[in-house]
Amino acid sequence: MSEKSFNVSCPVPEYSFEKITLGHGSGGILTSQLLEKTVYSLFSNDELNSQHDGAIISPKGRIAISTDSFVVSPIFFPGGNIGDLAINGTMNDLAMCGARPKYLSLALIIEEGLSMEKLWIILHSIKVIADQHGVQVITGDTKVVESGKGDEIFINTTGIGEMLDDVSISANNIKSGDCVIVSGMIATHGMCIMSVRQGLEFRTNLQSDTCYVGDAALALVKELGNDLHFLRDPTRGGVATSLNELVNNTTYDIELDESEIPVLPEARSACEMLGLDPLYVANEGIFIAVVASGSARQALDILQRFDISKQAVCIGKVLEGGRGRVVVRSSLGGKRVAGKLPGDQLPRIC
Amino acid sequence: MSEKSFNVSCPVPEYSFEKITLGHGSGGILTSQLLEKTVYSLFSNDELNSQHDGAIISPKGRIAISTDSFVVSPIFFPGGNIGDLAINGTMNDLAMCGARPKYLSLALIIEEGLSMEKLWIILHSIKVIADQHGVQVITGDTKVVESGKGDEIFINTTGIGEMLDDVSISANNIKSGDCVIVSGMIATHGMCIMSVRQGLEFRTNLQSDTCYVGDAALALVKELGNDLHFLRDPTRGGVATSLNELVNNTTYDIELDESEIPVLPEARSACEMLGLDPLYVANEGIFIAVVASGSARQALDILQRFDISKQAVCIGKVLEGGRGRVVVRSSLGGKRVAGKLPGDQLPRIC
Repeated sequence: MSEKSFNVSCPVPEYSFEKITLGHGSGGILTSQLLEKTVYSLFSNDELNSQHDGAIISPKGRIAISTDSFVVSPIFFPGGNIGDLAINGTMNDLAMCGARPKYLSLALIIEEGLSMEKLWIILHSIKVIADQHGVQVITGDTKVVESGKGDEIFINTTGIGEMLDDVSISANNIKSGDCVIVSGMIATHGMCIMSVRQGLEFRTNLQSDTCYVGDAALALVKELGNDLHFLRDPTRGGVATSLNELVNNTTYDIELDESEIPVLPEARSACEMLGLDPLYVANEGIFIAVVASGSARQALDILQRFDISKQAVCIGKVLEGGRGRVVVRSSLGGKRVAGKLPGDQLPRIC
Repeated sequence: MSEKSFNVSCPVPEYSFEKITLGHGSGGILTSQLLEKTVYSLFSNDELNSQHDGAIISPKGRIAISTDSFVVSPIFFPGGNIGDLAINGTMNDLAMCGARPKYLSLALIIEEGLSMEKLWIILHSIKVIADQHGVQVITGDTKVVESGKGDEIFINTTGIGEMLDDVSISANNIKSGDCVIVSGMIATHGMCIMSVRQGLEFRTNLQSDTCYVGDAALALVKELGNDLHFLRDPTRGGVATSLNELVNNTTYDIELDESEIPVLPEARSACEMLGLDPLYVANEGIFIAVVASGSARQALDILQRFDISKQAVCIGKVLEGGRGRVVVRSSLGGKRVAGKLPGDQLPRIC
């Protein structure tokens, strides 16, 4: 498996079968054997071990729910694999709601023929991140489809998080003068996937930025209170599309200062080679925070405390009297409107 | 679309595009257009309409969570489609935990080229059932994969249900003498799918039994109290596999009376033609209830009140001093052990 070299290695158990077969999705003995040696041995906890059709939990107060199916291709890439994306992506979506991730469901659609080695490495990646952040995988599902009817593995993760007290993060909260902060370098994940995607000729040293950004985001939630107006992780469609979703159909514009937008040099040159705008490229390890102008300095100070957001920067402002557009001011002073991603920049990026 | 004739027709809106393209999964303008005209128009509610990365709810007390990915082939079949299976299946899993379904996430993995007509009919089916049972679709996700990397559509539904008070349904509760009840005819769904699966030569009038069984199951929960020991919907692997999961590794056996096991004549003859045992064929519209022997009559009376469980019947008993096996007693008095489904009886049945 050439992709394995991208990933932190982990010891792979010995299996009596090397590859997934249709029988592993039958619901019978083979399914039990597969799950005992993968999911149940990795994620053991009371709810999962009960092997019921669902899990029962007693959450405190309001909860957030988020679901995502991951279909990234290739499933292994520099900096991670589809398992990392799945758990980080769903935990990040919960954090963007102002919730601390607590529980995860894990549903696999496996293409017949996937090697047990790949499956184990992917599940192991999920396990490591779950443990790191105190998240439990409490219920799941495993299906197998015939060779040629899937693409190695698709993963759905649905997350349950407990809302921090008194949180109200909503597009309706934004105000004129608000500062638009990005927590780190943009376009890294998307350009990493492009660099390894079959059929593209160039390679770079880019690694996906996939990670959990919730500790930094939830610190903003707690410390800024009502001065934190909006949070969003700009995945598919990139920063420009997320900001359009925020202001389209409002009377606000967002004006971005192009010279402030942080992009890794390798990602920038990959974008230039392919004629892509980094503002539309998918991210997996950063988030956007829209904060009251008076709290912008404090927000950046908070973000400085976390490794994943040390390079946080204010890239623009919310302006009143606008037409619901995202406007980019170039370093030469020119302005252009950056609408939503118009077509299909790069399929299966997450 | 020849499959359409299987389904209740519903008016299909006019779309400016006839088929799903990769761009519909980009996260940009095409994704927005697709979702506005399908998911958002069908499932409108406050949480979904906020179009955040997740939904925020305030459940009462304990909640149950269940997830399932559906990969059934074909996606349309007599009696329903993959959408019906997805919502009924996830709601049923919640009910089997003793929870009333309240919220659903809906994640689609669509193969490029799926017709808008099929997508609409599938989503419309989900909408009708959700409304019927007061369930809200509050968050979702849509991905598109290239033609040949999926199979029309895969659907993940994760459900959240509110637990009824004081419920404790667990394999640990079963006792010697308990009565094993099935709520209706077994093997119907599986034999229906087989009857339309490409490559099989026979056809029958069988319709899938896919439906929500929770009203009947939760009536048992409420009215039998602690005398209801266990609930399970025997989907993949069938009744035999579910019962094995219940008693394997215990000192109980379950003895089934073969002559009491209800099977539709069409399903039975289809099983005979294909050499299949109905006990291993998937079901989507029945459940198993294990109840204290003294409450068996009351349980059957309760089930009589619901259309979906009018034909409920006691098919066997839990016996102590056993070896964790399911034993089937034939009408001639012979006995055979029915283990878990050994291999791959029929892939992609749900």
